Amino acid sequence: MQAIEGSKISILTDGDITSPSGFSAGGVHCGLKRKRLDLGYIKSDIPAAAAAVYTTNLFQAAPLLVTQESIAADGKLSAIIVNSGNANACTGEQGMKDAYEMRRLFAESEGLSETLVAVASTGVIGEELAIDKIRTGIPSLMNPEHGTAERFEKAILTTDTGTKKAAVTVEINGKAITIGGAAKGSGMIHPNMATMLAFITTDAAVEPEDLQLALKDATNSTFNMITVDGDTSTNDMVLLMANGSAGNTALSREHKDWAHFVQGLGLICESLAKQIARDGEGATKLVSVNVKGAETVEGARALAKTVISSNLVKTAVYGSDPNWGRIVCAVGYSSVKVEPNSLKVYIGPHLVFEKGLPASFSEEEAKDYLSQELIEITVDCCQGSAEATAWGCDLTYDYVRINASYRT
Amino acid sequence: MQAIEGSKISILTDGDITSPSGFSAGGVHCGLKRKRLDLGYIKSDIPAAAAAVYTTNLFQAAPLLVTQESIAADGKLSAIIVNSGNANACTGEQGMKDAYEMRRLFAESEGLSETLVAVASTGVIGEELAIDKIRTGIPSLMNPEHGTAERFEKAILTTDTGTKKAAVTVEINGKAITIGGAAKGSGMIHPNMATMLAFITTDAAVEPEDLQLALKDATNSTFNMITVDGDTSTNDMVLLMANGSAGNTALSREHKDWAHFVQGLGLICESLAKQIARDGEGATKLVSVNVKGAETVEGARALAKTVISSNLVKTAVYGSDPNWGRIVCAVGYSSVKVEPNSLKVYIGPHLVFEKGLPASFSEEEAKDYLSQELIEITVDCCQGSAEATAWGCDLTYDYVRINASYRT
Repeated sequence: MQAIEGSKISILTDGDITSPSGFSAGGVHCGLKRKRLDLGYIKSDIPAAAAAVYTTNLFQAAPLLVTQESIAADGKLSAIIVNSGNANACTGEQGMKDAYEMRRLFAESEGLSETLVAVASTGVIGEELAIDKIRTGIPSLMNPEHGTAERFEKAILTTDTGTKKAAVTVEINGKAITIGGAAKGSGMIHPNMATMLAFITTDAAVEPEDLQLALKDATNSTFNMITVDGDTSTNDMVLLMANGSAGNTALSREHKDWAHFVQGLGLICESLAKQIARDGEGATKLVSVNVKGAETVEGARALAKTVISSNLVKTAVYGSDPNWGRIVCAVGYSSVKVEPNSLKVYIGPHLVFEKGLPASFSEEEAKDYLSQELIEITVDCCQGSAEATAWGCDLTYDYVRINASYRT
Repeated sequence: MQAIEGSKISILTDGDITSPSGFSAGGVHCGLKRKRLDLGYIKSDIPAAAAAVYTTNLFQAAPLLVTQESIAADGKLSAIIVNSGNANACTGEQGMKDAYEMRRLFAESEGLSETLVAVASTGVIGEELAIDKIRTGIPSLMNPEHGTAERFEKAILTTDTGTKKAAVTVEINGKAITIGGAAKGSGMIHPNMATMLAFITTDAAVEPEDLQLALKDATNSTFNMITVDGDTSTNDMVLLMANGSAGNTALSREHKDWAHFVQGLGLICESLAKQIARDGEGATKLVSVNVKGAETVEGARALAKTVISSNLVKTAVYGSDPNWGRIVCAVGYSSVKVEPNSLKVYIGPHLVFEKGLPASFSEEEAKDYLSQELIEITVDCCQGSAEATAWGCDLTYDYVRINASYRT
């Protein structure tokens, strides 16, 4: 446990989605993937207030539609069932039937009403879900020896190279509440798009409307600020369950500790988002683009995302090339109004561009900086006080290899 | 010469920017590049009506600003002087001085007023232009043995793997006028962005306002519909000179043959745009994305550009993978309203997606189709009658290699 100075937050270094009280999780192999775990669940002992954000892709996958129905029923969830290996996307009516059946099977096994169960899928798109494998897998899913957060974290992966988790405690009214998270994203052996799934649990009691608001805000500044290849999946979803087991008076925007809860939730989202970006397909480096001095937060976000999305910036980072020209060029086509002569650009600590001209800096030192694994690029507009950060990764031979290889 | 059936247009297979009467061109090596030609000109015997479109990048390079001044003076140009090897971008006041000086030197050498000369540059950005080399190069530029369109075409290249040219004749009032073009784009050994430059000449007489309108329209449906990596350069420019040497009554929107002139101009722009896309960095294939049945042309264009810009689509094409899921996914996040169940997607002649589901097609045949050099992807929205085509290329190991290699 590691306290963040000057805040009411401590990071639980080994924490996960089961750190908040009243949550359990697990995973099994049911046969959708060849060998690795491919079916997982998160469960709350009591119905939890639920919040969610979904992909804006027009082709939303069936499980997202079913989850939206579940949450719409009464704003609560007791459990989430997730499979990897098949996204159940572009699967038409049969896909909807399968997602409903997946929900029904798990609800029945746990004695829950169906609308207390959310469904998520990730993997190959356009193929029918092998629902029989899920039917067979569910009984063993609740076997106690399969009941660990780590097994859940593994069960939701596709070609991710590692699991992604985070947890913090936040002091609310002098008492600790806990927030935990797990995520997957940005890898695929199968042909389709890199889906991002994130699941967050908390034992805090939170007013449902404010919970949704907090999740949306946190998502906008974290998950929505990462990019691996600019392709927005059909299956992206962030799901948050707050079960109130911590026994706090329900949090809301009016609560004096609301800002602390929001900060804690933001940290979880940011940590998971960065883990996803770092594990981007073929990535060797995590890149943060910090925009400062912008006139609006929207402008700062758009600018940060334009720079982090530039293939030319991403390949330059891969090649450890302090190529400020590509950064300036991306700023110039971002559609955000920036005064060219006010702009300052930094690669790590090195000022590389100011007053419309290259700054005097050591190419050698900047190259050394770029040879590290964690890269920070700072764009200071020197116009206002709005800030934003976007995270991404470098563009490498392996990205091309992974995505150009024919489906097996 | 090859007539296009049912039109008044013939393609001049071996034509170029000097095919229209009254135009000459040439190129020399002045030392900005190590060995290859790097300084070129196009000249009209008499002042020509000029039209131009420029990059929307905020960081417009100095030569673009000087060219805008020249054209603003009286709407006419007699000559264009172009260098490669240095973009004269992000070079501040010194860059402006150098661009003015480059214009002055060429104007003086030809006895032209300065505002009849346009200036263009492409190459590395953020480095001062070696104006002395240009000063030394200009006298030999007008040496008759350096005066060929081919030498001009070569002098404007950076890491392009070949020259790009096109020419047509159009029958106006029963008499032929000629349009020629040259372009460069989409390659760089030096670190910066892939600049696109295109120069078009015609001996037609055209009303200046309508000439600008025609160029803008043609650019929107051709040059603005290509992408190599989504990065919009600081130096992009398309310049058109119409000198009236063909002796036709001046063309305008009211002229009965206006549509034919516009069609001819469009063919030149489309041909050059496709040559640029095919020569994209590391590209092995030219990809056309045709959108049909959209509600608006703007929507069709946005959709086509979203699909052609997707790194996942581009790597799939490289890998000859008939990965319709990535195409559908890109359609879904394009922000254009499409009815998922109406959408049809074709890879070449193969229908791969309809009614929200994968169509039944032979993966083997689709893979064979994708192994060719010219790939057509068709997205039919089945909603309206608007159409658009975008051109691009595959994303390959060589793209990463070219752009990740450290500057030398």
